[in-house]
Amino acid sequence: MPRITSVEVIDVRFPTSLTSDGSDAMNKDGDYSAAYVVLHTDDPALTGHGFTFTIGRGNDLCAAAAAQRGRPLVGREVDDLCADLGGIYRELQSDTQLRWLGPDKGVVHLALAAVMNAVWDLAARRAGKPLWRLLADMSPEELVAAADLRYLSDVLTPEQAVALLADREPGRAQRIKELEAGGYPCYTTSAGWLGYSDDKLRRLCEEAVAAGYKHVKLKVGADLTDDIRRCGIARDVLGPDGHLMIDANQVWDVPEAIAWVRALAPFNPLWIEEPTHPDDVLGHAAIRRAVAPIGVATGEHGMNRVLFKQLFQAGAIDYCQLDAARLGSVNEVLAVYLLAASFDVPVCPHAGGVGLCELVQHLAIFDYVAVSGSLDGRVTEYVDHLHEHFTDPCIVKNGAYRLPSLPGYSAELRRPSLATYTFPTGSYWASRGSAESVA
Amino acid sequence: MPRITSVEVIDVRFPTSLTSDGSDAMNKDGDYSAAYVVLHTDDPALTGHGFTFTIGRGNDLCAAAAAQRGRPLVGREVDDLCADLGGIYRELQSDTQLRWLGPDKGVVHLALAAVMNAVWDLAARRAGKPLWRLLADMSPEELVAAADLRYLSDVLTPEQAVALLADREPGRAQRIKELEAGGYPCYTTSAGWLGYSDDKLRRLCEEAVAAGYKHVKLKVGADLTDDIRRCGIARDVLGPDGHLMIDANQVWDVPEAIAWVRALAPFNPLWIEEPTHPDDVLGHAAIRRAVAPIGVATGEHGMNRVLFKQLFQAGAIDYCQLDAARLGSVNEVLAVYLLAASFDVPVCPHAGGVGLCELVQHLAIFDYVAVSGSLDGRVTEYVDHLHEHFTDPCIVKNGAYRLPSLPGYSAELRRPSLATYTFPTGSYWASRGSAESVA
Repeated sequence: MPRITSVEVIDVRFPTSLTSDGSDAMNKDGDYSAAYVVLHTDDPALTGHGFTFTIGRGNDLCAAAAAQRGRPLVGREVDDLCADLGGIYRELQSDTQLRWLGPDKGVVHLALAAVMNAVWDLAARRAGKPLWRLLADMSPEELVAAADLRYLSDVLTPEQAVALLADREPGRAQRIKELEAGGYPCYTTSAGWLGYSDDKLRRLCEEAVAAGYKHVKLKVGADLTDDIRRCGIARDVLGPDGHLMIDANQVWDVPEAIAWVRALAPFNPLWIEEPTHPDDVLGHAAIRRAVAPIGVATGEHGMNRVLFKQLFQAGAIDYCQLDAARLGSVNEVLAVYLLAASFDVPVCPHAGGVGLCELVQHLAIFDYVAVSGSLDGRVTEYVDHLHEHFTDPCIVKNGAYRLPSLPGYSAELRRPSLATYTFPTGSYWASRGSAESVA
Repeated sequence: MPRITSVEVIDVRFPTSLTSDGSDAMNKDGDYSAAYVVLHTDDPALTGHGFTFTIGRGNDLCAAAAAQRGRPLVGREVDDLCADLGGIYRELQSDTQLRWLGPDKGVVHLALAAVMNAVWDLAARRAGKPLWRLLADMSPEELVAAADLRYLSDVLTPEQAVALLADREPGRAQRIKELEAGGYPCYTTSAGWLGYSDDKLRRLCEEAVAAGYKHVKLKVGADLTDDIRRCGIARDVLGPDGHLMIDANQVWDVPEAIAWVRALAPFNPLWIEEPTHPDDVLGHAAIRRAVAPIGVATGEHGMNRVLFKQLFQAGAIDYCQLDAARLGSVNEVLAVYLLAASFDVPVCPHAGGVGLCELVQHLAIFDYVAVSGSLDGRVTEYVDHLHEHFTDPCIVKNGAYRLPSLPGYSAELRRPSLATYTFPTGSYWASRGSAESVA
């Protein structure tokens, strides 16, 4: 019976700020980074890999927090953890001294995500299944036992959650077949970073359409004149039937958001993403009322299930963009998917960064198979950066994620990549004299 | 012209879990801690002191984050900082890579509070005034320039904030005289920690009444039968006219909160504090509607001004309990006081922990003098622990804070205390072999 022998934590940073990849109105110079966790066992063939995603400075804080979060795992039997994935989550989450630093938010919560993502990866590997299938093979009762439903009972009790999942259980096998044939639909953000020139924007939009994408997303919010010109280019390439999404990355106050989005309404955007501060539930609700029929999307900075509960209660969003490395791993992601299904709001997970695409493909597939049972209005983000650093990179064809087939959560980074990009000792950073940021 | 030469950051932990001081239904074994910041200048007589408060594990994360937050201060001229306290706040706050780890919440925000608290202490010392007087001597325009009003303009514009302060400016001198005579009213929590026996509870309540307190607060939420018995003891000692407050420290879901508080209604509590998760604006609003006329209070885990804006918008609370070391220092505290005044909600700051009383006395005094202009429904927390470690401890007489008179924010810890309680190298912790928690 394998046992966890150590928790390895690595601060990994990629110098993405050099090329303006990932640039937007709020985040001008991010170095995409992972606080990366490896659970080692006394079976050398059995490991667990997980991470949370950051954009550079402070990744060391997440790594240090992950080391603290992971400490209780050492010595545990892997099969005990696999038998009660809700129990180990609640145990790690409920450290009362660390809880004070959130609760359920910020560095300590990102670190919980990193550690529990590694536990879920380990569980899926132990079962010999990709994570999406591990979840799809669980009963409604097992899924609800793993989900973090605390503080949600005013809108969703465990009994209601079981009933929802049981209602959709019969179609699981059929839906898996559908996805095995066509994949899970995605859209691309790679075209629209704010730091790109107009020519590069047009060329990347054309390439996206040629590659089969029906959706393209642009970053907006730095300069309205630029935004009008750039949205015109994208709409021109997409034609009237393509879907254009716009993303302001939280730069506006509520009144400014309403005015700016109305000025871009002629380009018929499908949604405005992150129009204001991510904690502002009532602000998003006000914006949504004011800019309809343009939809409101948010969630990549959605800190926890309690925030999402309120976004749904307040009718604040049309699209839920949960983040697999910001929420407390699969346990809290499950809760948000269940809430979304009960409020009939489509979930279009946030991805990109480093490794987020690898994670969210599993979640989106599972959602269709077992929770929402629907693809209506659902499209998962895809960004074509940094996949080469993963041992089991996601595969996208014709605008759709192909189903992962290897055991685990697709979260493992290649050792040569770690040797190069570990901060500050990896060969890349050491050669630069360990400057904290390359930009 | 003095210049900042270094930012010293110290992880200080007091072994309060040994005596159940601070025990409640959520936080059973806290070791009250400070991530403590000292700004040194090239004038040995001029330093700035600040901290954020935690309850033990993870205090090192806040200290590490404070070191990063404080780095841009080195080399700055003190008088430049003092001339634009809003500018330096925005500069430190807007580090985009660290922002990703919040934004405006969790470890990176606690660290911003620690560093900016030290900047405000430095500014008050440079001016030769206690912090409350530094603020009370600022014009409405200067105060609004220092306040963090971003993301609030849907309910409070800078112009409206200036008008509010200008309206209350004429009475400032008179209100200072009143407080110099009578002090600022406070209540005590020292009687009601959950770990105390019934006999100790009764004795401490009797001592509080004898010391002039009109308010006593009890921790509740672990066991309803115990709570009914303990509230009965407190009400018996207080008599029908004393104010009994109860505090659940976030242990309940919304429906449970409503049922439990209704069961304690016969003891006529003034407020129920932290009935559920601190992020749950709509949950607090639902609880408030259900338990009226019992008031709802929250705020010690209120992560930022955007949360407080929504608590006010939703009519979710009767009492705002902002925290001086969790919000982004005086800059964000100012914003919450302005919001509260514009919504006519009394602010009763959270205190206790280590050093929070020393800080909030300045804020409450300033609020009466320059913002709310009212003491109605206002009472500031006071807990009689750990004051002996400060060079300028708060002074409470007849249930009221006396006005601090020394220059600064009263945030300086005594060097012998640091030598003893620095973690893990101080003499106390070194003698215990650096166990992370004493409980």
